[in-house]
Amino acid sequence: MDISELLAAARGGSMRAAGRLLSLVESERRDELLAVLPASPVRTVGITGPPGAGKSTTVAVLVSAYRAAGLRVAVLAVDPSSPYSGGALLGDRIRMAAHINDPDVMIRSVATRGHLGGLAAAVPAAIRLLAALNYDIVVLETVGVGQSEIEIAAVADPTVAILNPGAGDAIQAAKAGLLEIADIIVVNKADRDGAEQTARDLHIETGLPILKIIAAQNIGIEALIAAIDDHHRADNDERRSIRARLQILSLAQSALQSHPGLAELAGRVADGDLDVYAATTRLLGGAQVSPR
Amino acid sequence: MDISELLAAARGGSMRAAGRLLSLVESERRDELLAVLPASPVRTVGITGPPGAGKSTTVAVLVSAYRAAGLRVAVLAVDPSSPYSGGALLGDRIRMAAHINDPDVMIRSVATRGHLGGLAAAVPAAIRLLAALNYDIVVLETVGVGQSEIEIAAVADPTVAILNPGAGDAIQAAKAGLLEIADIIVVNKADRDGAEQTARDLHIETGLPILKIIAAQNIGIEALIAAIDDHHRADNDERRSIRARLQILSLAQSALQSHPGLAELAGRVADGDLDVYAATTRLLGGAQVSPR
Repeated sequence: MDISELLAAARGGSMRAAGRLLSLVESERRDELLAVLPASPVRTVGITGPPGAGKSTTVAVLVSAYRAAGLRVAVLAVDPSSPYSGGALLGDRIRMAAHINDPDVMIRSVATRGHLGGLAAAVPAAIRLLAALNYDIVVLETVGVGQSEIEIAAVADPTVAILNPGAGDAIQAAKAGLLEIADIIVVNKADRDGAEQTARDLHIETGLPILKIIAAQNIGIEALIAAIDDHHRADNDERRSIRARLQILSLAQSALQSHPGLAELAGRVADGDLDVYAATTRLLGGAQVSPR
Repeated sequence: MDISELLAAARGGSMRAAGRLLSLVESERRDELLAVLPASPVRTVGITGPPGAGKSTTVAVLVSAYRAAGLRVAVLAVDPSSPYSGGALLGDRIRMAAHINDPDVMIRSVATRGHLGGLAAAVPAAIRLLAALNYDIVVLETVGVGQSEIEIAAVADPTVAILNPGAGDAIQAAKAGLLEIADIIVVNKADRDGAEQTARDLHIETGLPILKIIAAQNIGIEALIAAIDDHHRADNDERRSIRARLQILSLAQSALQSHPGLAELAGRVADGDLDVYAATTRLLGGAQVSPR
């Protein structure tokens, strides 16, 4: 099947065709696919946080809530330890299992590649594809341990940080730069000791309102959905430009890391044959290396 | 004074001329300076770790040890909270104060600029200048909280992580990716409770030998110096190439962030007028955006 046939089949409800198209965005045929996709608007939300904070549970209850509102939902898990793999579920993720056979829910794991687990270059293309397939909202789930969050923030909006009560998650999140890029902060498992204190500390640290939820009991989810909706309604040109800037820089870095000339340039710098500034200018093909 | 006069004065012992040259590497005249500098070899060592771990104290005792061995030493502090500023000392850094009037010790703070506090683009040029001014070793001190360490690792070799006993520093270091890039790990304040346990845990986590020191009492410094020396002796082409690669990518990212065309491209992406891949290709001036 060629790409237009796959698109027609996916729009007609074939999950298999949709899955094949999603595989294409990670392949050499990505540009070919992008060329035939319209630029449809789509809502996105990023869910991030330290391991064990309850990201997958939160994603599952969000999906249920969006489905109850009649929305078509796609989940992209940018997480090497994600319970999703190739659209199939592993393990005992009971809540998400409810959505496996729902044709209006697409669940997909996206591999992270390159330097420092940087965001897969495929993610912006995957979102554009999902928009063209008439999904209403794309949920990006990412493990919250560093650079990948900064890059996710450039793609998803809002970015929701999920943390547990206690100092541990808050410290981890702060160290990873997560608190700086989060638009919405959620304390999950809010029935545990210390949840109030953690929420107060996070509010003082970030100035953001802190939501408290118990995802496993579906408590507090309406308020989270409302906060995400408010954020979407407040989107504007300036915020879109900031996100676009970060996306471009993220893709540029991925491209440079895999540039075929990099190894030779690095070798010449190591040999003392070329200085590192001249090598950078050559790598960039004449783009200016600013002194600042 | 023009650059060649400044270089002559600095080589003749003028700290004022050396300071003015170091300011030039952070200015628009950097390329002009680099053009007249020979590519002299110089040893480097990076000292990093969480706030409060004792980085500055360790740097001070290292400087004393190197001076006792007759080496000329330069310290570049890439840290916004550094006690050094413009070559002058602030506060009560008694040990470093011993070196203020030593003409064979240069202490300089370098501002971090750009995205996520990335390594100042000036640092490689500053090191090259210091080498040309006949410093034997350049000590780079950086605060250990994230991206900057990865970039420092590309410039300094070896990278020494300074941690305190207890789980806190070790967790912070792990989260920041510091344990992955460290060549030498040091537990400072090793007379405190838990130092042995922390050293064991870090050894299990990283596979590296862990040094224990009490920097404030000058205990364990000979072993640290020996470990740094061993690392320098073991340097080879492959390691130099890896560092050069990281330096080139770091400089390229800084250059792209300040590219004059970026704002317009981001605006066009935000307006839906251009896709993010095409914008990236234009930013890179034809450099290939790899599908992977």
